[in-house]
Amino acid sequence: MFKFSFQNDYSEGGHPRILKALARTNLVQEPGYGEDTYSQQAADLVRQKTGSSGADVHFVSGGTQANIISLSSMLKSFESVISVDTGHICIHEAGAIEATGHKVHALRGLSGKITLHEIEQIVAEHYFEHMVRPRVVYISQSTELGTIYSAQELGDLSALCKKLGLYLYLDGARLGAALTSPKADLTLAELSPLVDAFYIGGTKNGALLGEAVVINNPELQTDFRFQIKQRGGLLSKGRLLGIQFLELFKDDLYFDLARHANQMAHKLTVGITALGYPFLTDSLTNQIFPIFPDSVIKQLETMYHFYTWSFIDPQHMSVRLVTSWATPEPAIDEFLVDLKNLG
Amino acid sequence: MFKFSFQNDYSEGGHPRILKALARTNLVQEPGYGEDTYSQQAADLVRQKTGSSGADVHFVSGGTQANIISLSSMLKSFESVISVDTGHICIHEAGAIEATGHKVHALRGLSGKITLHEIEQIVAEHYFEHMVRPRVVYISQSTELGTIYSAQELGDLSALCKKLGLYLYLDGARLGAALTSPKADLTLAELSPLVDAFYIGGTKNGALLGEAVVINNPELQTDFRFQIKQRGGLLSKGRLLGIQFLELFKDDLYFDLARHANQMAHKLTVGITALGYPFLTDSLTNQIFPIFPDSVIKQLETMYHFYTWSFIDPQHMSVRLVTSWATPEPAIDEFLVDLKNLG
Amino acid sequence: MFKFSFQNDYSEGGHPRILKALARTNLVQEPGYGEDTYSQQAADLVRQKTGSSGADVHFVSGGTQANIISLSSMLKSFESVISVDTGHICIHEAGAIEATGHKVHALRGLSGKITLHEIEQIVAEHYFEHMVRPRVVYISQSTELGTIYSAQELGDLSALCKKLGLYLYLDGARLGAALTSPKADLTLAELSPLVDAFYIGGTKNGALLGEAVVINNPELQTDFRFQIKQRGGLLSKGRLLGIQFLELFKDDLYFDLARHANQMAHKLTVGITALGYPFLTDSLTNQIFPIFPDSVIKQLETMYHFYTWSFIDPQHMSVRLVTSWATPEPAIDEFLVDLKNLG
Amino acid sequence: MFKFSFQNDYSEGGHPRILKALARTNLVQEPGYGEDTYSQQAADLVRQKTGSSGADVHFVSGGTQANIISLSSMLKSFESVISVDTGHICIHEAGAIEATGHKVHALRGLSGKITLHEIEQIVAEHYFEHMVRPRVVYISQSTELGTIYSAQELGDLSALCKKLGLYLYLDGARLGAALTSPKADLTLAELSPLVDAFYIGGTKNGALLGEAVVINNPELQTDFRFQIKQRGGLLSKGRLLGIQFLELFKDDLYFDLARHANQMAHKLTVGITALGYPFLTDSLTNQIFPIFPDSVIKQLETMYHFYTWSFIDPQHMSVRLVTSWATPEPAIDEFLVDLKNLG
Repeated sequence: MFKFSFQNDYSEGGHPRILKALARTNLVQEPGYGEDTYSQQAADLVRQKTGSSGADVHFVSGGTQANIISLSSMLKSFESVISVDTGHICIHEAGAIEATGHKVHALRGLSGKITLHEIEQIVAEHYFEHMVRPRVVYISQSTELGTIYSAQELGDLSALCKKLGLYLYLDGARLGAALTSPKADLTLAELSPLVDAFYIGGTKNGALLGEAVVINNPELQTDFRFQIKQRGGLLSKGRLLGIQFLELFKDDLYFDLARHANQMAHKLTVGITALGYPFLTDSLTNQIFPIFPDSVIKQLETMYHFYTWSFIDPQHMSVRLVTSWATPEPAIDEFLVDLKNLG
Repeated sequence: MFKFSFQNDYSEGGHPRILKALARTNLVQEPGYGEDTYSQQAADLVRQKTGSSGADVHFVSGGTQANIISLSSMLKSFESVISVDTGHICIHEAGAIEATGHKVHALRGLSGKITLHEIEQIVAEHYFEHMVRPRVVYISQSTELGTIYSAQELGDLSALCKKLGLYLYLDGARLGAALTSPKADLTLAELSPLVDAFYIGGTKNGALLGEAVVINNPELQTDFRFQIKQRGGLLSKGRLLGIQFLELFKDDLYFDLARHANQMAHKLTVGITALGYPFLTDSLTNQIFPIFPDSVIKQLETMYHFYTWSFIDPQHMSVRLVTSWATPEPAIDEFLVDLKNLG
Repeated sequence: MFKFSFQNDYSEGGHPRILKALARTNLVQEPGYGEDTYSQQAADLVRQKTGSSGADVHFVSGGTQANIISLSSMLKSFESVISVDTGHICIHEAGAIEATGHKVHALRGLSGKITLHEIEQIVAEHYFEHMVRPRVVYISQSTELGTIYSAQELGDLSALCKKLGLYLYLDGARLGAALTSPKADLTLAELSPLVDAFYIGGTKNGALLGEAVVINNPELQTDFRFQIKQRGGLLSKGRLLGIQFLELFKDDLYFDLARHANQMAHKLTVGITALGYPFLTDSLTNQIFPIFPDSVIKQLETMYHFYTWSFIDPQHMSVRLVTSWATPEPAIDEFLVDLKNLG
Repeated sequence: MFKFSFQNDYSEGGHPRILKALARTNLVQEPGYGEDTYSQQAADLVRQKTGSSGADVHFVSGGTQANIISLSSMLKSFESVISVDTGHICIHEAGAIEATGHKVHALRGLSGKITLHEIEQIVAEHYFEHMVRPRVVYISQSTELGTIYSAQELGDLSALCKKLGLYLYLDGARLGAALTSPKADLTLAELSPLVDAFYIGGTKNGALLGEAVVINNPELQTDFRFQIKQRGGLLSKGRLLGIQFLELFKDDLYFDLARHANQMAHKLTVGITALGYPFLTDSLTNQIFPIFPDSVIKQLETMYHFYTWSFIDPQHMSVRLVTSWATPEPAIDEFLVDLKNLG
């Protein structure tokens, strides 16, 4: 019997406060295409919370779209993006970046994080006009493996990129989870100046949809709305995105929701560890990757939805369990009881 | 003093029933990416209402996106799209189709509608491999000038396209207005089989966002989800679109909303005509284009929002007035009174 | 019985001096990819002959390739090219520019030449981010209709482009014919500073293949070799192009060949006029467009190759007759005799 | 003092017979764009020599161009190419394939050759619409490391591709060297049916420029000339390519030239081995990769041109020495003497 889905952090709709805000403002007439007062206010709020007063802020409907628009607008035709091979743009966007004409270099990384050495090496190897020119380093915070870059790591990356003439772009689909992780040593305002552009993910943290693209580097600000329009990212009712980000950031709702997701994941981690199961990565956020015997997985699948993630050995797989702002604590408790009681 | 905006049909949020449906379903857990039960049911409903039982139905977030994904998936690299020069893809999408690598031929048309002769001519002119090969005819219903194709006209277009080996694609951003126009002689179920693919616009007819792409031609159905994903059109919370279309089509809400918009525009047309002003086109839908002296426009602009549309002569311009599901009748009355009382 | 082809100016191989130069240098070892001494010397010569000492000069194998590489490297993703509708990029390159992601605006022009007014209008119409941004004006000298821009016309165009922030690019596939036309009032050194970039056509004026792209505007010089490589335009044996341009420009061979082609066309024009036939355009170069009755065309086709060009009326067509460096004067004489003697 | 360049196999012009053939045919008038009689005859010859009577054969000017046109015409927008990471398209074409919108997967391979296991794995990993769909396997024969696929290996690859629904495409820039290698166990006629499309490299084996693209799979033959035109690959004087391939294949000149290049490389290999130096790969063709101490390299560089290839250890590098149809045997002898006599 199906009990609960840990498949992802977008299984439900939006946080109730979001729905209320939409209802409250519903009949106010506003200009279209993100020029409404809500979007303007939300952009101001984002600038304030990121401490980046000179940033441009644009709202788009999803993460792949944010990546397409941001990355393609940073690159000349022969320039490329550096990513780890588990990066969302590398594997999970159906070649969206290449469809805009650009190569994505897939580096091995370590626990989902790119290393300084790999960046130096790929740049050194691409030294003349028969090759693409690496131009942007793409990272995710938190990563696809649930890990996070520390302040030190992100600072080092930022410095290296500056030194090598690379832009640093951060995919923040799960930025909330990263910033509220118990191991987080970076605030939003500390992170923002370290990158040239990034996006703050709404969809996976309480919004119905929407991501806030923040462009810090003035070189990258020019003409960005052309890019959004051309890629199909300019919503007629842009207010829909502005209203949600206003609600998420006018107090600490965004962080509260992310913290809840992390706490639920942490509780799961503690419980699963106590039952003696190992993990694929040392996740500090709302995605965890326990390793179970195939027989355990088979039984769990009758009650819970989740993805099997990677092959470990002929008897074991890692699975991905994702929690969210909407995960009720009893669902965690029940999962742990069920896991304990498995044959 | 600002009284009302006739600038477009997306100045407000969504119809209250839409908001209620979102709230009602909010915490139900569903799979992502359009594989939720709401989207499946909405797709079934659309198939039923269009009478196209073999159609594939996909929901995407906006019209430009629907056009990018649909058109680019119909074309080989050297194939092109035929449109009138007022077509949305020709002028108002920042080169979105060209950005996918394809030429758009801009034909003169007549009152926003493409003519059979122009299509035959452009096809005849492109006859060998030094030229692009025209492959899709793109039309809008209603058009950018508020006009509509009659059953006869659309039937003739459809027959010509079949004869010439062209796909026929219909941009239905304002399809509701076209189908409920007092002059409409085509139902949704009569229109659908005449085109290879089309989309039913939600954003401009009561949805918060969303368009339903309907693909009738089986040749065009294969792999369409790859295309959606690659262009950034696959929403994580696809339910958001499914729920809205379910609400719009489970009874006649979609048509009721469009009919209201048309009625409001009709009332405006009658009133403006009675005051002796001419019109740019004989619009039968929710966009009308009266021609006013510049002095009148200047005074109206102090009270109402609308776009000035085209230059007529040194003393006159046409303006565009748009009504929607949300336009209250008193706003119409007030506008007409104000127009009458102008100095 | 077939006597001669006036179909185009690339029916033969290369000028004998070109073949000799290739043979003479054949076994000298040189670096690849245009870094050979011949290409360097040829680039220097081109800089000298154009009087553009700061120009970058690159050699590529054909006109479409020159256009693809030059235009795409001038444009951001949402920027477009303005051309007359008879322009080579508009109609005869299979959508090559669009395949790099850019819209080409097709203007009516006058006798194959773009007008100032049309440029001003198209720029005025494209004023915000829902539209592409026109960025380059593309012209041909001589045009596809054999006409040429005068010094005054080109100067005015250049000034307008500067004023409007547009680049001016000149397709010189038949630049030799334009510069040596009896009506030419511009030298190569006078023309060059009026445009941001252009190419000097070799293929249609005595080379086996090859065009010299001249980039005057320093903004456009950066990274151009990446663009050539990425589009497949960097020949391993770049010497093949350098040697030819060296031969064509080390004395006045390039101009002598073009002048011969023009003289042959002029002789044809005079003779055909004397026989009472009218012309489609007042061509001053090596392409002429006489209008013949269909019955005349039918008889000529048994002896000569040429293209029928455009429909005039049910009894008449225009045809295109092209002469080249390789057209022997007796072929002209014979054609005129045959035309005179037709039934 | 500079003595000789082993930098590549395109340091000289074309084989003298090629130049003679060009001179002999120079003033014959022929249609343009590859529709001349020489190109037609050369295509027939290629069909005959490859034993692929149903193949389409097209001539283009360079290898990157052949790859761009062939690969992009095989792929839908979301489909990708599989290559080894040393593949020319992966690293040495400035992102040309990605510029047409397609991902290139970079696999490790073994000695420059792709392995069956890697192909199976990458296909298995890309199983749904959030990912690209691998569609073509790209290989080179000989590889960038001078190695060759045996008949067994190529047969296995071909069978696997058929089984997995992949096209197999072979980059034959140095196909001559592969087919005439002392270890070759495949003739041209045995190789051709194993691949869906390939090209026979002329530029690196005696032509001034030119590659013959052979398309065996009828699915891939349709509309190919549109693709060539659109990418700027259709030379006006297509005869230039046809004449050369006619000369190369009307007897065994193509194979004789390649055999000479291999023999020169073999003589170098034997001589260098005798002097006690190891090699990076066991090359069987005209590119060899000896490993020398840095001090040796420094001295050789004063007399010979060649590329240093890869870092081995702090005291050693591998270098690449390339021979060609034009390498005189005395240059080999002298190099070996010089190497022996180095301090």
